[in-house]
Amino acid sequence: MTLPSMAEAVVADLAEIRRRRPLVHNITNFVVMNLTANVLLALGASPVMAHAPEEVEDMVALADALVVNIGTLSSDWVDSMEQAIRAAGARSMPVVLDPVGAGATRFRTETCHRLLAAGPPTILRGNASEILALDGCGDGPRGVDATVGSITANDAAGRLAGRFGAAVCVSGPIDVVRGAGDSGSFHVANGDPWMSRVTGLGCSATAVIGAFAAVNSNPVLAAVHGMTVLGIAGELARHHATGPGTFAVALLDALAMLDAPTILTRCRIARCEPVPEPAARW
Amino acid sequence: MTLPSMAEAVVADLAEIRRRRPLVHNITNFVVMNLTANVLLALGASPVMAHAPEEVEDMVALADALVVNIGTLSSDWVDSMEQAIRAAGARSMPVVLDPVGAGATRFRTETCHRLLAAGPPTILRGNASEILALDGCGDGPRGVDATVGSITANDAAGRLAGRFGAAVCVSGPIDVVRGAGDSGSFHVANGDPWMSRVTGLGCSATAVIGAFAAVNSNPVLAAVHGMTVLGIAGELARHHATGPGTFAVALLDALAMLDAPTILTRCRIARCEPVPEPAARW
Amino acid sequence: MTLPSMAEAVVADLAEIRRRRPLVHNITNFVVMNLTANVLLALGASPVMAHAPEEVEDMVALADALVVNIGTLSSDWVDSMEQAIRAAGARSMPVVLDPVGAGATRFRTETCHRLLAAGPPTILRGNASEILALDGCGDGPRGVDATVGSITANDAAGRLAGRFGAAVCVSGPIDVVRGAGDSGSFHVANGDPWMSRVTGLGCSATAVIGAFAAVNSNPVLAAVHGMTVLGIAGELARHHATGPGTFAVALLDALAMLDAPTILTRCRIARCEPVPEPAARW
Repeated sequence: MTLPSMAEAVVADLAEIRRRRPLVHNITNFVVMNLTANVLLALGASPVMAHAPEEVEDMVALADALVVNIGTLSSDWVDSMEQAIRAAGARSMPVVLDPVGAGATRFRTETCHRLLAAGPPTILRGNASEILALDGCGDGPRGVDATVGSITANDAAGRLAGRFGAAVCVSGPIDVVRGAGDSGSFHVANGDPWMSRVTGLGCSATAVIGAFAAVNSNPVLAAVHGMTVLGIAGELARHHATGPGTFAVALLDALAMLDAPTILTRCRIARCEPVPEPAARW
Repeated sequence: MTLPSMAEAVVADLAEIRRRRPLVHNITNFVVMNLTANVLLALGASPVMAHAPEEVEDMVALADALVVNIGTLSSDWVDSMEQAIRAAGARSMPVVLDPVGAGATRFRTETCHRLLAAGPPTILRGNASEILALDGCGDGPRGVDATVGSITANDAAGRLAGRFGAAVCVSGPIDVVRGAGDSGSFHVANGDPWMSRVTGLGCSATAVIGAFAAVNSNPVLAAVHGMTVLGIAGELARHHATGPGTFAVALLDALAMLDAPTILTRCRIARCEPVPEPAARW
Repeated sequence: MTLPSMAEAVVADLAEIRRRRPLVHNITNFVVMNLTANVLLALGASPVMAHAPEEVEDMVALADALVVNIGTLSSDWVDSMEQAIRAAGARSMPVVLDPVGAGATRFRTETCHRLLAAGPPTILRGNASEILALDGCGDGPRGVDATVGSITANDAAGRLAGRFGAAVCVSGPIDVVRGAGDSGSFHVANGDPWMSRVTGLGCSATAVIGAFAAVNSNPVLAAVHGMTVLGIAGELARHHATGPGTFAVALLDALAMLDAPTILTRCRIARCEPVPEPAARW
């Protein structure tokens, strides 16, 4: 695909989300549940949050994608996450995993490995510190924020993609998306620095990718398209914002109002292959 | 009561909420806790969220109304909900139940029946899919969003009202409120389509009804008045909104600033009796 | 210190927070987690929320301050809070405790005493009702909102400060900060009445104080500076707000954009000693 056709593919996927309103089942953290639900609604998808072991399988059976995020994890929730991942795997339903804070504590890193073992995710999205930690290198984040740039984790992302047969997305000023084998490598340069000043926009990116995975069976493209759309919404929000409070509000408006011409004009996706070249190509 | 006098009754109840600041005890879901608390504060009520079995009875004893919402339920929370409902029943305190996602999973439906058995709610508020599911018909929602219009659930609401001696409110573009026996049937046509684009406004409606139930001992009127006030706030918010982000923010402003002339002008309540006529009468 | 130099000290601490981005580990309640994280990000700090017993000690080890808030407490979370407080004590790390609703239920009051016994906090911040309840007098709040003014709790705050060797901050229209022994007594008159119309701004104040405690080893000054900065942000927010919805959003903007001249102009700190004189001295 040429780059213009990639922008058109983003437009097509977004239209499909708005038409089908895929049900995205989230088992996510307390901090971001509200924002995540609002981001999914603004996008045009239908969010549901459910974590009880008595119902996760039933909810997975209703859903079009499963998003698992370990932000405020506890062992009972991890049991439910594992159960949901297995159920989704049995239904060949897309699963997006957000390894929040992997590397920061041993419990987080071990939980991620346990969830990865329960069933390889369709897409894994983290910041550079988290991806490095899961690859077994790096010091992990201090808390839940990245301490290094996304490009730093390019090789780790490639290795994880190969190991799990998953698309791996490293978010940052430039988002890196790596597929397994020869399924491609992309950079997305959309976004705004203020996105890191609002809590939960990383987690929301994971949920947005879940919605795209519900309508696009190519995990690499689902990740690329999701990051592009959220990034463009961030760029538009910046024009209406006087700080992080108005920015978050404007981002929801922008996401809901996002139209094809805006996407076609602003889309900044770059394909990097066959050997990824982390240097920006724009 | 004539319709103008109904609008005046809404005004009177809102004034009473602002004067008495009733304490509304919420056992609700993680997604909407923050919005629910802010909606209650904007309305003029005083919210409290508490779910520990060690304190729910003490908190019920302090409160003027109990709101139970099963949105992100788990079995331990359901135990507390049951305990709180019993305590509220013993105190003849109004209880409003929101059966989020009833019908979507067996766990949700069974939990609702268990909570209904613990003590009939004063008011039951759900969307049409949820009300149909509790009545034993319909397929339930896909996730937590309604899949059919509120009028569809009119008869189911009437049956549930009779069965539990409760007011039953089915929210939707037109809200249907049914009382037990001859206690009346109403339609509320206030509201804005964007209210379904913000997560938790249904849950917030339940909490608002809880505040009205704290000052109005007629459950049907408490539900009607609550839906009217939130609906009008939604209409006003639309004028200041450029999308769902600004809409949610503007709704809180509108709720806090809502005055009598606005209510008298905008109130769209219709009484339907003796045989409910779902066709709009405005 | 003279009062101008106090304003300069506020400016210096805020600059230090923005430079060092201290990691503030919060074990807090479901209602306010999102706002608390956004307030800390807007301030320039780095928030993390983690409560699992498997990781609280590891997270404390990474953090620069611990904030414990019992808002939606349950017994398993209290275990983690206790564990975190002990770990923080062992590291001589600042701990800020928010006894939400102390006095409202026996479970809350007892939990506070248990947490205070686990390790005296560096700073205790509550509303007047909560501070009176912890001192063993007063009726406690009705729910979680204060029923009396902050000055009423001045003596109780002084006693608690002495008993725990902590700074005690009573928030209200005028915030009272009492230190142990001769470490000082202050009033902060910054703030806006609308701050009580947004849920979680008290809890956010506690978190802000945590960030200041991470960069200022004097607990009394950390509390005073934190309350001043949040209060000024509230005053600025009021200029952009048409209700509590826009107020909360504008407060985040104001916090992120707060500059030295604004602080120097608006800072309203009064030192009260040797005998506290509650009458305003401005």
